[in-house]
Amino acid sequence: MPLRLSTLFLRTLKEDPVGAEVASHKLLHRGGYIRRQAPGIYAWLPLGLIVLRKIEAIVREEMAAAGAQEVHFPALLPAEPYQASNRWEDYGDNIFRLQDRKGADYLLAPTHEEVFTLLVKDLYSSYKDLPLSIYQIQTKYRDEARPRAGLLRGREFIMKDAYSFDIDDAGLAASYEKQRAAYIRIFERLGLEYVIVQATSGAMGGSKSEEFLHPTEVGEDTFVRSAGGYAANVEAVTTVAPEPIPFDGQPAAHVEDTPDTPTIETLVAAANEKHPREDRQWTAADTLKNVVCTVVHADGEREVVVIGLPGDREVDLDRAAGTGVLSAGEHDLVAATEEDLAKHPGLVRGYIGPGLSLDAPVLGKDGSTGLRYFLDPRVVPGTRWITGANEPGRHVFDLVAGRDFTADGYIEAAEVRAGDPAPDGSGPLELARGIELGHVFQLGRRYAEALGLTVLDQNGKSQVVTMGSYGIGVTRIMAAIAERFHDDKGLIWPQALAPADVHIVATGKGDEAFQAAESLTAALEERGLSVLVDDRPKVSPGVKFGDAELLGVPTIAVIGRGLAEGRIELRDRTTGASEEVPVDEAAARIAEAVAAKLAG
Amino acid sequence: MPLRLSTLFLRTLKEDPVGAEVASHKLLHRGGYIRRQAPGIYAWLPLGLIVLRKIEAIVREEMAAAGAQEVHFPALLPAEPYQASNRWEDYGDNIFRLQDRKGADYLLAPTHEEVFTLLVKDLYSSYKDLPLSIYQIQTKYRDEARPRAGLLRGREFIMKDAYSFDIDDAGLAASYEKQRAAYIRIFERLGLEYVIVQATSGAMGGSKSEEFLHPTEVGEDTFVRSAGGYAANVEAVTTVAPEPIPFDGQPAAHVEDTPDTPTIETLVAAANEKHPREDRQWTAADTLKNVVCTVVHADGEREVVVIGLPGDREVDLDRAAGTGVLSAGEHDLVAATEEDLAKHPGLVRGYIGPGLSLDAPVLGKDGSTGLRYFLDPRVVPGTRWITGANEPGRHVFDLVAGRDFTADGYIEAAEVRAGDPAPDGSGPLELARGIELGHVFQLGRRYAEALGLTVLDQNGKSQVVTMGSYGIGVTRIMAAIAERFHDDKGLIWPQALAPADVHIVATGKGDEAFQAAESLTAALEERGLSVLVDDRPKVSPGVKFGDAELLGVPTIAVIGRGLAEGRIELRDRTTGASEEVPVDEAAARIAEAVAAKLAG
Repeated sequence: MPLRLSTLFLRTLKEDPVGAEVASHKLLHRGGYIRRQAPGIYAWLPLGLIVLRKIEAIVREEMAAAGAQEVHFPALLPAEPYQASNRWEDYGDNIFRLQDRKGADYLLAPTHEEVFTLLVKDLYSSYKDLPLSIYQIQTKYRDEARPRAGLLRGREFIMKDAYSFDIDDAGLAASYEKQRAAYIRIFERLGLEYVIVQATSGAMGGSKSEEFLHPTEVGEDTFVRSAGGYAANVEAVTTVAPEPIPFDGQPAAHVEDTPDTPTIETLVAAANEKHPREDRQWTAADTLKNVVCTVVHADGEREVVVIGLPGDREVDLDRAAGTGVLSAGEHDLVAATEEDLAKHPGLVRGYIGPGLSLDAPVLGKDGSTGLRYFLDPRVVPGTRWITGANEPGRHVFDLVAGRDFTADGYIEAAEVRAGDPAPDGSGPLELARGIELGHVFQLGRRYAEALGLTVLDQNGKSQVVTMGSYGIGVTRIMAAIAERFHDDKGLIWPQALAPADVHIVATGKGDEAFQAAESLTAALEERGLSVLVDDRPKVSPGVKFGDAELLGVPTIAVIGRGLAEGRIELRDRTTGASEEVPVDEAAARIAEAVAAKLAG
Repeated sequence: MPLRLSTLFLRTLKEDPVGAEVASHKLLHRGGYIRRQAPGIYAWLPLGLIVLRKIEAIVREEMAAAGAQEVHFPALLPAEPYQASNRWEDYGDNIFRLQDRKGADYLLAPTHEEVFTLLVKDLYSSYKDLPLSIYQIQTKYRDEARPRAGLLRGREFIMKDAYSFDIDDAGLAASYEKQRAAYIRIFERLGLEYVIVQATSGAMGGSKSEEFLHPTEVGEDTFVRSAGGYAANVEAVTTVAPEPIPFDGQPAAHVEDTPDTPTIETLVAAANEKHPREDRQWTAADTLKNVVCTVVHADGEREVVVIGLPGDREVDLDRAAGTGVLSAGEHDLVAATEEDLAKHPGLVRGYIGPGLSLDAPVLGKDGSTGLRYFLDPRVVPGTRWITGANEPGRHVFDLVAGRDFTADGYIEAAEVRAGDPAPDGSGPLELARGIELGHVFQLGRRYAEALGLTVLDQNGKSQVVTMGSYGIGVTRIMAAIAERFHDDKGLIWPQALAPADVHIVATGKGDEAFQAAESLTAALEERGLSVLVDDRPKVSPGVKFGDAELLGVPTIAVIGRGLAEGRIELRDRTTGASEEVPVDEAAARIAEAVAAKLAG
C-alpha cells in the first residue's frame, strides 16, 4: 500500500524548532519525522520510523554476517550489577535512577555490559562455549547535562550494543576485528564518511578502543589527524616530549620582583625587558603555569592537586581525567572551587610555583603544601622556566626542571593544538570535529572479574573471560545522515534509507493527474517499489513541490501539465536533474533510476 | 542461515525457576526463551526474540489492514501531561516515577493516551483531518505490587497500543469496531481462543470497554458468562435487583438480645431457635452485614463509609470501586484500618446497623454517625433483615428496607457468584478465569478535554475530539500461547510462531547423520523454510530429543539409525505422530507438513 499524503499522519512545518542549531534537527522536525517530547526525548512519526527501521535492518544484517546473535534486554535494571562494577557511582548524574514501590534501586541502563556478563555467566561454563558475540538494538538512557541538536545528543536513544566473550587476548582481538569490520561495512552501506580514531575508554574501562566519527563541523567530538594517517580523539593524543636538556651551563635560578604582571602576556613582556634571556626572547611557552584542580574521589572526598604546564596552553580537564591522574577509586577531575582553595593557604594565588630548589619543594607529596603535583610531558629535565615564586609580586626565573624541581608524575593535561606533532611521527596534527557514530572497546577482564564470569579452560582450570563492547548510535546515525544529505530546501535521503522509493506529486484541477498518479503507483508497486503519493486535493503545486523537497525522497515524479501530451516529469532530488518521460515508460524509467541509486 | 545448536546462545535447563507456578513461566525459562533480570523484568534470548517478533509482525499487519498508522513514543515521559489528566495521581504506586538531574518529574509510561492526544493536537486542527488511528508497539512499565507468572504479569512488557480520534460518537463507534475486528483477526491467526467480555474502564476513564480474555485456569482475571452468550469481567457485572416488596403486613422491627453470636452462622442459628420467621427458616442471606470501608480521596483524605449487603456475600472492593462509590476525585476504596475505625466511636464493632427507624438513622449522611451508607442492589424496599442494633450483644429483627432505613445510594459491592442471574436475562452465570490479552475502550472526550484537543467542524466551530484506546499485551500473548500449547515435555508452538519451521536432530557417531542434516537443511532453506539444526557433537540422542520436545518446534526431523536404510524420521510435535520417509523425499514432505499446518 502506498503512503498517501491525503491521510498520512504528517504535517510539514515552515518554522524551525525553538533553539535548533543544526540542519538535521531542523529538517527532521520540519519534515514531520520526529517530535520533541522533553529535552533530548523524541517521538517518531510514521516517516521517521520507516527510516529508523531501515537503518536498524542494515545494522542487523551486518551483525548477523559478523556472527553476532540477537538478544534483547530490559531498559529498567536493578542497581546491584552496576554497583558491583562501580559504574553506579562512576556515572554520577549521567544516569537516570529510580526506586520501585519497595524502595529497591533501579536505573535506566546507559549500556549493558554488566547484565550481558551475568547472562553469559548464567548460561556458559566452558572454554568450548566461546567465542560468543551477542547484541541487541535497544533503547538506552543517559541524563545528559546538555541534551542538544535533536537526535545528535539525546537522553533516550537507540543503540546497537554488542558484546564479545573470549577465553584469551587473541580471541578478543579477533572478535574485536570482526565487529570493527562490520562497522566499516555498515557505514559504507549507509554512504556515510567516517574516520576511525584512537580513543580512551572513559567510564567503560578497558584497554584499546576506537571511535568511528563522521567528520562534520556540527559534531560534538574534537579529533585530530595527520597527513600521515594518524587519527585520534583529542583525549587519546599523547604528547611528544622533547629530549631532555643537560643542566650544564644553565644559569642558576633567581627570584625577581615582577610588579604589574597580572597576565602571562604582561609577565613575558616584563621578563624580556628587565630579565632578558641571553639567547632569544622569552615566550609564553617558557612560563610554567601551575593550575589548581580537584580530584573527586569515589567516596566524595575532594583532593586538591596542582598541574604544571607551559603557559601558552590551557588545561583540558577531559584529557587529564582520561589519561593520567585518575586511577581506580578516583572519580572525577574538576576545576578547584574557592572552597577547595581556601583549605590550602600555602598556595599563593597567581604566584604558585614548585619551589626554588629540590631541598625546599613547595608542591608535590614531599613539598610544604603536601599537594600532589603533576607535570605536562613537555616539562622534561633541563627545560628552563619562569614560574611563581610563592610570594605575591615575585617570580622565579631560570628554574630548571629536574635540577630545581620535580613532580609526582606526568599527566596529559594540556590542550592539543593544531600543528602539534602526531605521536607516531606522521606529521603535524590538524583539528577537526565529528559525530561519534560508533565506539568499539577491548574491555578486557574488568567486568568479568567484577561479576565473576569464569569458564573452565582445556586443563579444567578456571579462567576469567575477556570481553569486548561495541556500540553504534542508531538514532544518531539518522541525524548524521540528515546532516550529510540535505540542502537548503530539505532532506535528500540515500536511496537505501528513504521513507519511500518514489514520491509522486499529482497536480492540476481535473481528475486526470490523480488517476495517472494511481496508475503509476500501482505500476511501481508491482515492480516492488515503495511509493509516497501526494494525492491531496486542493493543495497548490507549489506547496506540494516544497513538501517533496523537504521530505527528501530521492526520486520525484511530477504528474501535471505535461500529462496532456503524455509526459511525466522525473526529478532527481540528489542531482537536481529533471527530465520528461512518456507516461507509459515512467514506471520502467523510475525503477531503473532507483536500482542505479541502490547500486551506488 | 540455520540456527545451529552447536553455537546458538542457548542452554536448556532441567530445573524450573524458583517460585514458578504456571507452565508458560517454567517452559519459557527452561527452554531458554527468556531470563529473569528482576521481579517482572525479563531479558529475551535468541529464540524468545524470534517468537516475539513473529507475534509483533502479525499485530502490525492487522493494524495496517485496519488503517492504523505506526508511530513510536518514548517510554520516559515528563509528568505534566499525566498530571493534567489526573493519572499521575490516579496510578498511585503503580507507575515508576523518577526525576532528572534538574529535579523535573518523569514517569515510565504505563500507556500513552496523554502524549498521543498532545501529538494530534500539535499536528491537526480540522474535522477534515479525522478520523485518525495511530499505534505503536512499545515497551511499557507498571510497578505491579505482585509481578508474577513470568510474562503473564510483568513490570516491563511490550504492548501494542492504538488510539483513535474522531469528531463524533458515530465516528468513535466505527473506529472502535475496526480495532475490535482487527483483534478478532489477530487472535484467530494466533489460534488463541478468546472471550470478549464487557469491562469497566478503571483508571483509563471512558464509557464502553471490552476485554479479550483467553480462558484458562491460570488467568488472573475472573469473568462470568451465561449459556445465553452474556460475558463480562466480574467488575462489570450489574446485579439483578429483585422486585420491591410491599410493606403491608410485615412485622414491626424489634431489638433482641443475641448473646454468643460472634458469626453470621451462629446468629442465624440463634435467630431460628429463639426468633423464628413465620414463613420459613432465616438464612445468612436474611442478615444485613454492614462493612466499614475507606474512600481515599485524591488529596489523601480518608473518608470512612459503610456498605450494607446480604450476610452470605463478601465485599468485592474492586467491584465497588469500579462501579459505584468512586466518583471523580475519589481515588481508591480500601478496607478500613483500625485507625480509621478509631475515629468513629459511634460504630459498635460487630453490631453496626442503619438504626431502628427512619426517624433515628445511625448510618447515612443524615444519620448520627454522619458516615455515607451504601447498599447492595438486593436490599430493595420491602426486604426484611436481621442486622446490628448498634449495641453490643443485640440485633434488630424484621428491619424493613425503605420502611425503617434508607441509604445514600446503591453500590455494586458484593461478590459475583456462580448461579447469579445474568443481567440480560440470558441465564445463570458461571465463573471462569482468563488471561487479559487485549482491552478496547471508547474513551470519549476525557483526555481531549483535559489536554485541549479540539478541531474546527464543518461550521468553523471548535469541537472536542472523541477518542478510543486499544491495547494488546504482546509479551502476555506469548505467555498465553505457551499456556495453551504445551505438554508435560515442553512447548508446542503453532507453526506461525515457532522459532523455526523445522528442528533437525542429527544423531549417531559417524559423520553421515551430520552430513545428511546439512544437506536437508540446505534443501529446506531452498524451499524458504527456517531450520533449527541440532548439530552438537558428543551430545546423546536422548538429550537431543528432550531438548527438541522442550523447545517445541512443531516438526522434528530425526536423522539417525534409519539413515543407513535411506530413511529419516519425521515427528509431529503437535499430534505426536511419527513416520519414516525416504531421505530424498524428506524436504518435500516437510514442506508439505509445514504448509498444511500454516493453512490451519
